[in-house]
Amino acid sequence: MKTFRVGLIGFGTIGTGVIKLLQQNQDLLVERLGAQLELARVVDLDISTDRGVTVAPAILSTRIDDLLTDPGIDIVIELIGGYEPARTFVLRAIASGKHVVTANKALLAVHGEEIFAAAAQHGVDVMYEAAVGGGIPVISAIKENLCANRFRSLCGILNGTCNYILTRMTNEGAEFSAVLKDAQAHGYAEADPTFDIEGVDTAHKLALLLSLCFGTRVPFKEIFTEGISQISALDIQFARQFGFKIKLLAVGKIDADGRIEARVHPTMIPLNHPLADVDGVFNGIRLVGDFSGPVMFSGRGAGMEATASAVLGDVMAIARNLRVGAVQRTPALGVNATALRDLPLKPMDEIISEYYLRFAATDQAGVLAHISGVLGHFNISIAAMIQPERQIGGAVPIVFVTHEAREADIRGALAQIDTSPMIRDVSRFVRIERDLS
Amino acid sequence: MKTFRVGLIGFGTIGTGVIKLLQQNQDLLVERLGAQLELARVVDLDISTDRGVTVAPAILSTRIDDLLTDPGIDIVIELIGGYEPARTFVLRAIASGKHVVTANKALLAVHGEEIFAAAAQHGVDVMYEAAVGGGIPVISAIKENLCANRFRSLCGILNGTCNYILTRMTNEGAEFSAVLKDAQAHGYAEADPTFDIEGVDTAHKLALLLSLCFGTRVPFKEIFTEGISQISALDIQFARQFGFKIKLLAVGKIDADGRIEARVHPTMIPLNHPLADVDGVFNGIRLVGDFSGPVMFSGRGAGMEATASAVLGDVMAIARNLRVGAVQRTPALGVNATALRDLPLKPMDEIISEYYLRFAATDQAGVLAHISGVLGHFNISIAAMIQPERQIGGAVPIVFVTHEAREADIRGALAQIDTSPMIRDVSRFVRIERDLS
Repeated sequence: MKTFRVGLIGFGTIGTGVIKLLQQNQDLLVERLGAQLELARVVDLDISTDRGVTVAPAILSTRIDDLLTDPGIDIVIELIGGYEPARTFVLRAIASGKHVVTANKALLAVHGEEIFAAAAQHGVDVMYEAAVGGGIPVISAIKENLCANRFRSLCGILNGTCNYILTRMTNEGAEFSAVLKDAQAHGYAEADPTFDIEGVDTAHKLALLLSLCFGTRVPFKEIFTEGISQISALDIQFARQFGFKIKLLAVGKIDADGRIEARVHPTMIPLNHPLADVDGVFNGIRLVGDFSGPVMFSGRGAGMEATASAVLGDVMAIARNLRVGAVQRTPALGVNATALRDLPLKPMDEIISEYYLRFAATDQAGVLAHISGVLGHFNISIAAMIQPERQIGGAVPIVFVTHEAREADIRGALAQIDTSPMIRDVSRFVRIERDLS
Repeated sequence: MKTFRVGLIGFGTIGTGVIKLLQQNQDLLVERLGAQLELARVVDLDISTDRGVTVAPAILSTRIDDLLTDPGIDIVIELIGGYEPARTFVLRAIASGKHVVTANKALLAVHGEEIFAAAAQHGVDVMYEAAVGGGIPVISAIKENLCANRFRSLCGILNGTCNYILTRMTNEGAEFSAVLKDAQAHGYAEADPTFDIEGVDTAHKLALLLSLCFGTRVPFKEIFTEGISQISALDIQFARQFGFKIKLLAVGKIDADGRIEARVHPTMIPLNHPLADVDGVFNGIRLVGDFSGPVMFSGRGAGMEATASAVLGDVMAIARNLRVGAVQRTPALGVNATALRDLPLKPMDEIISEYYLRFAATDQAGVLAHISGVLGHFNISIAAMIQPERQIGGAVPIVFVTHEAREADIRGALAQIDTSPMIRDVSRFVRIERDLS
């Protein structure tokens, strides 16, 4: 029976999960692979902390070269995260003819093209299921079984921290800052939560999904990204009155002109939307293919064990290739590199959506007429309105749900409305997404 | 660029969808495969009916040998369904060294072992994603990305006809027979709907999923199977009062002794269960892996286009293998044939579940005490009870939800209760399934 040797860079939480899985399910992996997987090297700056798993001291090292220059190692798992030194290590592994499995969405969203080109040049595979959706096999699904589809759209809840915070805000009526603090205390949010709560992590994942679904390069920095820190308990409460929940969504679509809509922002979705019940740290992704129709996935978006499941799924895929003497069976982005396009991104001003609008107005006659007038002037038509009888800081909230409108018109209307002395605070809007098809 | 030649057996609805997809997405398939797929032969008894797709007359044939003896055909798609002649055709294709893609769950549930053994012997692949869950890539997920997991349980809504009927009964308060008739008139149910409504189709699919998840042979006939024809509008209404929906579920579990629970039956699930919102013709499947945790999939479980998506996904997988000179990369059942076990099935008498019980009793004092007494005698403890004040056919319904009980005790208690002259009709029970973990 063949043995494939695996090297692990990064002995943190996920690395520990990977080792635990390799040990606990060894018999199963052999049965399903028809070969052995051997953990041959674990590299980390800290190899002395007890992680609760037993690793032979001989395979532990603090020197990356012990892994990268070992010709016996077939597959490298990169779990250190971030851009550098992850990029350097991955490129060195590839150049040495080693296959790579990584969970590093930041690395791939920004340096994916360089890494995938190097892999093609050196005839190795780079796989990254764990980079999006944790234990949910969505990347495999797009690259493999759904690959006969022309994808129309995708939308997903891709960040467990944001979803946890929004779920608690929704269930408890609490404000963002209080829930964030508590989430940090309980390990559901990082000490510096910026990447998560400002939507950067979600945008990294969206960049990968867009390339996979639409066969296009996506300059990560051009993805419109808006986080959840401006969402208030008040908006969540009004959302519920209109029959919506607020989720941080990644939205990707392709229009009739081949332009890509790529955006990450808090979004109101109807309570019966397939993603509405994806709560807490769970992730959910909905894809629409031209033949498959809508396909929905949900599961644990993060965590030691779910991520280890995805990492080992990739290791098994590479080992299965190696067992039958095949590499680069499926392109890293699902299409041949030569077929990768540069589809234009649709400017945010041009997107069409329904909107939730909230104004803080003085409690006087004529306010509603004024706001309605400006909205009408910008071709924004109102579907529903709530004007509760209560003051908040000397102003009353007036909230609307619009019919479909252009984002530029919404921004234009709100800018004009905000110049009125009857408006006491910056007006807010939240995009609404119904069932995508 | 390489060309792989595809032969299609069965030019019905799904076959038409496959041809449509091959034609409509040809450019995409080339980009994602790095090779060409050519439809080289279409065989059907009827090649004259207009199916709305254009097929070159030269590749149409009524003679199966035109396909099976053509050495230029690499991949055979079998879409005629049923046991014979599908079995013979598939075995002949395999013996000729052709790879096979099939959507035929009945064939694989009953003759899978013979077919997979023949494929291993002749060094070809047999794939069958379309056999379970239509366009949902659940078989790929189990065999590929989730393959590092020891699966704990699965539960699924796997038959679109039953789900359509139950959804309409739920939404409209209508009776089974009326909805079935209407479903037949609209093409959502077959003229002879037995296979669907009696749960046979679901059991075929469960047999495949059990083998995939637990690496065991499952004698199809030993799967406990109960259809939906006995479900009444009354039960659906009481279910709602208790916070449940009724779905036809396939349930598969493995217990601590390595025994397999395999059952198909109408099931009450809580309204917040991840499968509760999988309505109409949609299918949904929830798997629990030891590392992945719960992973949920939903999508179109049937239909020309969704099934074509799954069929072509398999064709692409085989073509990707062929392009890199690899076959039998992943075993047909996810484990090496030599590792396939014969795990014992757990007898239905021994399963533990909560139950919904409905009695039709005379409207007199002492009935409730009598029923409660018998239930208590069988160690069945009651969680909730509803006794509406109305007569139906000279009897009043009394309904219970129990705590966990053994199926043998439920059957024993109901048999004894039904001997009482106070009971006017056969007592009914429906199993309850909460979140599986």
